[in-house]
Amino acid sequence: MQSSIAPAHIVEAHDRIRNYIHRTPILTCQQIDDIAGCEIYFKCENFQKVGAFKARGGLNAVLSLSPQELEKGVTTHSSGNHAQAIALAAKIAGTHAYIVMPENAPRVKVDAVRGYDGEVIFCKPTLEARETTVQEVIREKNATFIHPYNDERIICGQATAAKELIEDLSHLQLDSILAPVGGGGLLSGTALAASFFSQIREIYGCEPEGADDAFQSFRAGVLIPQRNPQTVADGLRTSLGEKTFAVISDLVSDILLADDQEIVAAMELIWQRMKIIIEPSCATPLAAVLRNPHLFAGKKIGIILSGGNVDIKFGLDGTRLTFSS
Amino acid sequence: MQSSIAPAHIVEAHDRIRNYIHRTPILTCQQIDDIAGCEIYFKCENFQKVGAFKARGGLNAVLSLSPQELEKGVTTHSSGNHAQAIALAAKIAGTHAYIVMPENAPRVKVDAVRGYDGEVIFCKPTLEARETTVQEVIREKNATFIHPYNDERIICGQATAAKELIEDLSHLQLDSILAPVGGGGLLSGTALAASFFSQIREIYGCEPEGADDAFQSFRAGVLIPQRNPQTVADGLRTSLGEKTFAVISDLVSDILLADDQEIVAAMELIWQRMKIIIEPSCATPLAAVLRNPHLFAGKKIGIILSGGNVDIKFGLDGTRLTFSS
Repeated sequence: MQSSIAPAHIVEAHDRIRNYIHRTPILTCQQIDDIAGCEIYFKCENFQKVGAFKARGGLNAVLSLSPQELEKGVTTHSSGNHAQAIALAAKIAGTHAYIVMPENAPRVKVDAVRGYDGEVIFCKPTLEARETTVQEVIREKNATFIHPYNDERIICGQATAAKELIEDLSHLQLDSILAPVGGGGLLSGTALAASFFSQIREIYGCEPEGADDAFQSFRAGVLIPQRNPQTVADGLRTSLGEKTFAVISDLVSDILLADDQEIVAAMELIWQRMKIIIEPSCATPLAAVLRNPHLFAGKKIGIILSGGNVDIKFGLDGTRLTFSS
Repeated sequence: MQSSIAPAHIVEAHDRIRNYIHRTPILTCQQIDDIAGCEIYFKCENFQKVGAFKARGGLNAVLSLSPQELEKGVTTHSSGNHAQAIALAAKIAGTHAYIVMPENAPRVKVDAVRGYDGEVIFCKPTLEARETTVQEVIREKNATFIHPYNDERIICGQATAAKELIEDLSHLQLDSILAPVGGGGLLSGTALAASFFSQIREIYGCEPEGADDAFQSFRAGVLIPQRNPQTVADGLRTSLGEKTFAVISDLVSDILLADDQEIVAAMELIWQRMKIIIEPSCATPLAAVLRNPHLFAGKKIGIILSGGNVDIKFGLDGTRLTFSS
């Protein structure tokens, strides 16, 4: 199955969302380059609105709706960054967001959605309950459902991160580009942008060993959904959708794996050396680079740092600082 | 006592160190502005070489030495950012750094100095042992001692952070500028730069309640050294020196206090909302702004974020991420 997404769709998406997102900075770190043996350009979507690239897709999807659709509102089920992205997008578009969340969702995530005036509808913490509840919202409110990744508008929105990376580095020639892969929205968007707007032909998805459905599906040539994912990279536990798999099969060079220890070590390296906060999922591409030095030695590579939403609480034990997550 | 530092000294310092430091970015955060009720421009010295503004002063001091002095090497005692700054500066200047550190200094700090080819000389963990050991190095090696703050070359180097902030924001008129105060190198440099290069006349030092010697000294009009400091802001436990006190008495509007709870809350706000890593000392100015809303309501203010050196170790408890400091 070929994707129907054309370059113009991504250009239009970028024009549609440009005024509502941050053009996030690209950072480099000499110490990490020395360790990795290559030149890495990090596109910092951890500094994006809602703290993750998901703002791009959410905004593009919601701002693409017709006035009739906007009148009825939008809905999705998510306890993560997509929920916030849709709530933010709905607020900007002047429509209503019905966000279905499991009743055990962390308070901070519920508050974040409500902070963007999203209406939180709780359900039992099962996938079935989530889907049933969303179906009820769609039936009762006529709201438009926005899938977190298996949707061309979402894919085109996520593609704008790589498009900016390519534009801002037009003075040099990147050899490779890497993105983490969970549901595949960011990876398929990145692959499309690299194919349309650059000469980069080494496009890698990076995935935790404990949730390797993209790795398995890529090799088998058919979608193999993830069962019982076990990884610290909580944003990457989802399975590919058919639309994202189609793009990934077509354009991605390979799926690279990293285990949880490698992911956590890469995350520590970025926190310690770059002084920026990223979430575990986000460290998977650097972990994959460090695991596969032969693929990247001496090259110029772009990595999409996908997000920075980690719950951190500080405390005081006397004058000693304590952390908890 | 008046300071003998003139604008040309700071301009020369900047020219001297410019090629060896990062021109760090200035970040803003809408969410923090909404909470604080003012517009805050954060000068991010946590992204500076060695992770702190100290690289500026260290480089200016070492690069100011004569060839004869450089031949003999430089020395200081420090277990913190100044040690790394002097080691880095010595490496760049092609001279030798003898860094006296207490034998119980954290391994990570020892390794950082050695990473810049600094020679670490251990001593007993008392101030007396540190000073005796440095005296021995000076006698035996004829090395030049570089004080961490009570030195005009250090003050002029630290002043370049505020100079850059002022230059990069020349399109708007800042009302106030704030810096944390420990030994006073950064605050006195900031006050000089603001006085020489801008119209800013509200210059505040920000200090923890548990190490309030600058607050006490400023009010008394004489140096009152800190006894038994107790604060989470470990970079601010030192006392003012006579050179830094002279500048601060002359140019600073006031010293504002914050307690450890307020400092930790401000640090959490910056980590969570801005997705950047700062050390506790660095959060003191934002804590002071939040404590004194009447002073800053509706104003444009610059804050020097002084550094980002926090030791963080991640671990895994199953697939749950754990932190320790």
